[in-house]
Amino acid sequence: MSKPVDNAVSTVRAYIETHHDAFLQDLAEWLRIPSVSAQPDHAPDVRRSADWLAAKLRETGFPTTEVWETPGAPAVFADWPSDDPHAPTVLVYGHHDVQPAAREDGWNTDPFEPVVIGNRLHARGAADDKGQVFFHTLGVRAHLAATGRTTPAVHLKLLVEGEEESGSPHFRALVEQHRDRLTADAVIVSDTGMWSEDTPTVCTGMRGLADCEIELHGPDQDIHSGSFGGAVPNPATAAARLVAALHDDHARVAVPGFYDGITPLTDRERELFAELPFDEAQWLRTAKSHATHGEAGHTTLERIWARPTAEVNGIGGGYQGPGGKTIVPSSATLKLSFRLVAGQDPDHVEKAVTDWVAGQLPAGIRHTITFGAATRPCLTPLDHPALQSVVRAMNLAFDQKIRFTREGGSGPAADLQDVLDAPVLFLGISVPSDGWHAPNEKVELDLLKKGVETAAHLWGDLAENWRDAH
Amino acid sequence: MSKPVDNAVSTVRAYIETHHDAFLQDLAEWLRIPSVSAQPDHAPDVRRSADWLAAKLRETGFPTTEVWETPGAPAVFADWPSDDPHAPTVLVYGHHDVQPAAREDGWNTDPFEPVVIGNRLHARGAADDKGQVFFHTLGVRAHLAATGRTTPAVHLKLLVEGEEESGSPHFRALVEQHRDRLTADAVIVSDTGMWSEDTPTVCTGMRGLADCEIELHGPDQDIHSGSFGGAVPNPATAAARLVAALHDDHARVAVPGFYDGITPLTDRERELFAELPFDEAQWLRTAKSHATHGEAGHTTLERIWARPTAEVNGIGGGYQGPGGKTIVPSSATLKLSFRLVAGQDPDHVEKAVTDWVAGQLPAGIRHTITFGAATRPCLTPLDHPALQSVVRAMNLAFDQKIRFTREGGSGPAADLQDVLDAPVLFLGISVPSDGWHAPNEKVELDLLKKGVETAAHLWGDLAENWRDAH
Repeated sequence: MSKPVDNAVSTVRAYIETHHDAFLQDLAEWLRIPSVSAQPDHAPDVRRSADWLAAKLRETGFPTTEVWETPGAPAVFADWPSDDPHAPTVLVYGHHDVQPAAREDGWNTDPFEPVVIGNRLHARGAADDKGQVFFHTLGVRAHLAATGRTTPAVHLKLLVEGEEESGSPHFRALVEQHRDRLTADAVIVSDTGMWSEDTPTVCTGMRGLADCEIELHGPDQDIHSGSFGGAVPNPATAAARLVAALHDDHARVAVPGFYDGITPLTDRERELFAELPFDEAQWLRTAKSHATHGEAGHTTLERIWARPTAEVNGIGGGYQGPGGKTIVPSSATLKLSFRLVAGQDPDHVEKAVTDWVAGQLPAGIRHTITFGAATRPCLTPLDHPALQSVVRAMNLAFDQKIRFTREGGSGPAADLQDVLDAPVLFLGISVPSDGWHAPNEKVELDLLKKGVETAAHLWGDLAENWRDAH
Repeated sequence: MSKPVDNAVSTVRAYIETHHDAFLQDLAEWLRIPSVSAQPDHAPDVRRSADWLAAKLRETGFPTTEVWETPGAPAVFADWPSDDPHAPTVLVYGHHDVQPAAREDGWNTDPFEPVVIGNRLHARGAADDKGQVFFHTLGVRAHLAATGRTTPAVHLKLLVEGEEESGSPHFRALVEQHRDRLTADAVIVSDTGMWSEDTPTVCTGMRGLADCEIELHGPDQDIHSGSFGGAVPNPATAAARLVAALHDDHARVAVPGFYDGITPLTDRERELFAELPFDEAQWLRTAKSHATHGEAGHTTLERIWARPTAEVNGIGGGYQGPGGKTIVPSSATLKLSFRLVAGQDPDHVEKAVTDWVAGQLPAGIRHTITFGAATRPCLTPLDHPALQSVVRAMNLAFDQKIRFTREGGSGPAADLQDVLDAPVLFLGISVPSDGWHAPNEKVELDLLKKGVETAAHLWGDLAENWRDAH
């Protein structure tokens, strides 16, 4: 009974072995382009990176490849319809821009001159995110080779943006502008990681994000704390009392309505989290922190993956120079951010926080509160058929049990979910040691192959098991 | 029965009228010296101011005048013993340095070119503090003229420092160094004000001051709030929770032991405060504040004069630039100051705060707490014989009921009280509109005369009614 699968696995592996050197040479050529979106003098490089990728995708077989302009850096779109009219449509997301990197930051080699050391390819972008975008090129070729098809089993689209490392400022508008071209039954994000080399995992969701700045005004200017202190409200004290009131004594967020609508963590999900080989002491070292602290009744992994938070990102008021200054300060500022989980509505949270803040302040303290653009949370249920396909494809590639994680951070994937009204799945093969945003970024060559294999197996499985998606 | 007093009053007034023009010319000469202690390029002017004053005091009649060096700006000491061996010794305190001033700050005239406009003398230092030091020169001469004495009725000493506007960094050491020369039964501070032109008052005390800086450390560097937020302690949150816990819901300081030892405000003192023509709306305008706020059960005047406070002078942590940054910050800093009232021991408060802070912080937040040099509170009881003398002398000068105030701020007077173990009395004739530290500083010429008159009446009264002081 396992013969066809075994055959598929070995056919895919053989195809990949044959083409692996050329694949790596191509990837190295792309990695040599320093597409640093945060640095204006690299803008031509970011454009060159987009052009290079569009050409490479055409060479891969995508009949349509386009460079899409934004007010910032360009994105690349590619489209390869299936000859199967019942095939589901899948949109793969990644980015072709990279973090800044310079030899003097601590790199052992030139960050833009890729080099293989042992079984690792070192270069800026090797893992984040060029390597993970690029495994889809060889992946879809291996899929065709193993199935004898001339078009993919799914209608395959790629959207590779050029501003992810700069906060994706134009991404949502781009997706809205091209909504008709981007329609999909599912989104596959290849810009995340796995638990570790030994524990392959698939991410099932990301937290959302709402953030605000609160300005508190007391006296019209700093006033003398001897002449007036103790008899007028102090905006720094008011800011501090707001922050203190944000959480109750169990570290739960105390803003009424904040938890409304949350999709509860199921017992099964909690069990799956608990099965992961989590080493809290090691995690604390990664967090550069000296104790855990968080919502009562939840483990650390639950706290960072599945529970919403209210965090102070910045606070400032009054005199912050050397020595002291005996004033009642005129103003104070708070920067707060809220990580959101599935079921939470950012607009509802924004209103709840706004109302709550207004009710917390003493007479004589005026305030403004300004929210930034929110990012919605996303979560794919464990029993979603597309998620099952990803798990099966990874299982074939890794020949190991695939476990589940979530991502505590927030990303542009949520914009795709929102605008396209499609579930978001994560196919990432990076590991924590890959050094995203750090010197000596690398990708494990064995994992890169597993990425190619997973992509090669995924499209057939999705088409077969999810034909009624749309 | 009132004949001798009337005679004394008119004799003093006649003497002052005769010498008033010369007095004003001398004061103007002194005010022309820009003795700005905060500006290093004015250091020669501060020295010139000290030399000028020493010479003027010798001309006034003080047999001993000395310029005392400090590691900063020099002070002036003058000593005029009484021929009455039973006379009490009085030390007058003031300062000869001034705040910075420049025409472009909003002055209508050159701040160092004194000018009389209407009944006001405008110049930097006119009220703070050269004018108030200088009324003692004509005052003691009028005292001698009215009493026919050749030496003052008290053993009169003056100490006029040169660094008050720079925080008196060397004052305490100076007083300790010259303790034997400065011994006194009472200290008279002429560096304060009255309630208003219409309501002459005498100040009976100043609050003390203890201040500290608290540094709170969480993660070893700023960390990602998505990856780690909600699961590790945030030092900005810890700082805020400390501040929030400083006060209970009645705005009382919640640090155990903070209120230990306080000399209670008597019913009589509360009545006297309440009798003052206090206009809260006007006070709020002066405070540039939009509401009152303070310890329950106390009026605004009680809060600023007679109750201790805990105030946040500065708070800072995490990202304070434009926009947002999704971090758990590595550290946060608090600057707190505590105004102290009579009976509170700064060392006890320092220990109470230190112990309390250590017990408030969650695991994983390390901290340091550093206190600056404290200033003790001072308070002279209403029935103190020297205070009664000041009130009677002012009453003769103003021909009005003299009321009582206190001062919410803190000053070097407390060092004199501590080192010399002498009660501190306040004889100040400045009014709130005089513009201390502001452009167009002025002194009311009528009040300046009242200051001279008060000084002229004070020494005889003190000698007569307080012969057993020492």
